Amino acid sequence: MLTEIITIGDEILIGQIVDTNSAWIAQRLNETGIRVKQISSVSDDRQHILEALSLAASRADIILITGGLGPTKDDITKKTLAHYFGVGFKRDAEALEDVKKIVNSLNRPLTLLNEQQADVPANCTVLHNKNGTAPGMWFEHEGKVYVSMPGVPFEMMYLMDEEVLPRLKDHFNIEAIVHYNILTAGLGESFMADVLAPVEDKLPSHIKLAYLPKLGQVRLRLSAVGDDEKYLYKEVESWADQLCALIPEYVITRGDVPLEKAVLDVMINAGLKLSVAESCTGGFLSHLITKHPGSSAAYLGGAISYSNVLKMQMLGVAEDTLARWGAVSEETVIEMAEGARRNFLSNYAIAISGVAGPDGGSDEKPVGTVWVAVAGQTKTITRRFQFPGRRLQNIERAAVNSLILLLKLIREEVPNT
Amino acid sequence: MLTEIITIGDEILIGQIVDTNSAWIAQRLNETGIRVKQISSVSDDRQHILEALSLAASRADIILITGGLGPTKDDITKKTLAHYFGVGFKRDAEALEDVKKIVNSLNRPLTLLNEQQADVPANCTVLHNKNGTAPGMWFEHEGKVYVSMPGVPFEMMYLMDEEVLPRLKDHFNIEAIVHYNILTAGLGESFMADVLAPVEDKLPSHIKLAYLPKLGQVRLRLSAVGDDEKYLYKEVESWADQLCALIPEYVITRGDVPLEKAVLDVMINAGLKLSVAESCTGGFLSHLITKHPGSSAAYLGGAISYSNVLKMQMLGVAEDTLARWGAVSEETVIEMAEGARRNFLSNYAIAISGVAGPDGGSDEKPVGTVWVAVAGQTKTITRRFQFPGRRLQNIERAAVNSLILLLKLIREEVPNT
Repeated sequence: MLTEIITIGDEILIGQIVDTNSAWIAQRLNETGIRVKQISSVSDDRQHILEALSLAASRADIILITGGLGPTKDDITKKTLAHYFGVGFKRDAEALEDVKKIVNSLNRPLTLLNEQQADVPANCTVLHNKNGTAPGMWFEHEGKVYVSMPGVPFEMMYLMDEEVLPRLKDHFNIEAIVHYNILTAGLGESFMADVLAPVEDKLPSHIKLAYLPKLGQVRLRLSAVGDDEKYLYKEVESWADQLCALIPEYVITRGDVPLEKAVLDVMINAGLKLSVAESCTGGFLSHLITKHPGSSAAYLGGAISYSNVLKMQMLGVAEDTLARWGAVSEETVIEMAEGARRNFLSNYAIAISGVAGPDGGSDEKPVGTVWVAVAGQTKTITRRFQFPGRRLQNIERAAVNSLILLLKLIREEVPNT
Repeated sequence: MLTEIITIGDEILIGQIVDTNSAWIAQRLNETGIRVKQISSVSDDRQHILEALSLAASRADIILITGGLGPTKDDITKKTLAHYFGVGFKRDAEALEDVKKIVNSLNRPLTLLNEQQADVPANCTVLHNKNGTAPGMWFEHEGKVYVSMPGVPFEMMYLMDEEVLPRLKDHFNIEAIVHYNILTAGLGESFMADVLAPVEDKLPSHIKLAYLPKLGQVRLRLSAVGDDEKYLYKEVESWADQLCALIPEYVITRGDVPLEKAVLDVMINAGLKLSVAESCTGGFLSHLITKHPGSSAAYLGGAISYSNVLKMQMLGVAEDTLARWGAVSEETVIEMAEGARRNFLSNYAIAISGVAGPDGGSDEKPVGTVWVAVAGQTKTITRRFQFPGRRLQNIERAAVNSLILLLKLIREEVPNT
């Protein structure tokens, strides 16, 4: 069962908005076992929309369309759909009631433009939109299903969950897809591919392995297509076991979880607390952690000791250490980490100091040099990194790698984590 | 001059990642005066990619492709392109050097897979990628230009800015476009449009004004199209003067500068130092500032006092204040800001405490309630915000609005800023 998503709107094509609708729809479809063949963003142009509809119908069974349903002149989706299906318009009584309710609740008079929002192509089944004035529309045409939805995210989401997905499940006999993720860190994509080849080469044709690299991590994703979801899950799980057995030291977690969330979960489950001492990452590590709800169960806070004065004042780094070894040194990050752990009363503390760039590099410590220390319950470990990227990437890589180092020490010190 | 963007990768079609590359590329092209006709996301499937290439070439002059350039088995873009153009492969010496440098810097041996990353279709001009191992590729074929770039955003961005856009401007005879930005805060889009109407209505037809709202700011962008870039610039500058004269109290800065950079520049020029006390923003405000090179000239650092214990210990907030008014209160943020300014020896300090959500809200302080205080040289000012968004949006809005408040106080206290 193949779907195509067509998003309509000039605002996407000039980059004014990022099309987040498509990813959301794709995820929902994927969970339902419906594959997305293509996502196309096209302009508010009749000819272009007609072409996109024909092409999508030539490749897929389901065509989901978002956008272009507002009452203003640049929104022509509805007229174009009627033309595409070769039908006229009908006024839908229930849709008119929906429009009246919304307009009433805003204390506005009903305009002609409002009323016209209840006019729909004659061959459509109206999907009632309780969150806005533009109705969703379901069409069956020459063996294909077409659905048109508003582009406003929460209106689209409501229609997808309440109307579109249940109808699609009813209408088609849908093959299941199961995904299984393994998050790894510490080994590059191509090296990992070499190590995993003996298992990967044996994968049956209905199971695929993808490598999704990102900042020192590689996410492995097994995808299986078939009839029996439960059986497929067991199947990919067993292949996942075999893959993990080849790279035990690089596996962070199983499941579709970001690295920092995986580390947070380990700490929360073990009742461990974290504090930080950030220099070159300037708050990014903490943001990475605190953007997750519930992070306060493990994360206490910490110092952003950007200046040397604050490294001494907040963390107790010795003036002599800074003078002798510099702010970017193993000696300094050790004192920062141990100072944070002591002052902020945590079980673990991460300290990061480096040259994020573009300036501040030297022969001895070029841009991208980063020292990380993790102070734990029995010892403090350190590592020097030399990152190749630009400022923001160096900051991201430093934060991510400090979490990998933290997890390594936790797993060494705390049983069953 | 029409462009199509093709993004390749199953991870987009299952909704695992949102395609932010396309919007970024579209924006850059738009600024250069190149229109985007369609954005298509297709799977890692040879036949599908070939079809997408043909269709894009039938509609546009420039085809920009991202993704599918990694060394592993699921990445087939390069082979498909060679097939599409009907050519074999060549090994590019300079690309091989780039790969070796990256692999060397990671202290790893060069594998066969690594080496193959330097193999490119014989008809391509290699665009050197200093941030990764996959080179960009430029093709000229039957009057059209095709460019293939890695899907990793910062690698793609580098290639676009340094290689692709300059070459496109050269290759096609593109009319000059000049943009002039005015960053404002404090007045909504539609109110601003009313105030600016007297000037906007007089704009000549080759100059357009766009309103780009974002998180409490509105960016005004004047765009002029013509032959003589220098003359166009003078022209839009004079229109910008007239617009700014209507809204002097809302203008943050002129130029395409993010808010936090504008505030940083003001502080650096006036020799002022900033420290922070972040609670609900959890490091995001500091990251927003420190992602800019040179930020250490004004930003000293600060406390991420996520827990109440750290609010007392790092900032000197009284236990009684926390017990009486709670962590999210005017009283607490005042003590946080004044504590940061005092302890961290800065001229100004920002403190933020709020309920970012999704949990932790109450009737009195629902999710989205945020208190901000700015401690200055003569006084401390505060403001309570009630944001409507979800966690990450609340964090962003809190950080941005705290900077607007900071700038307000600096301009009140320091002459000529």
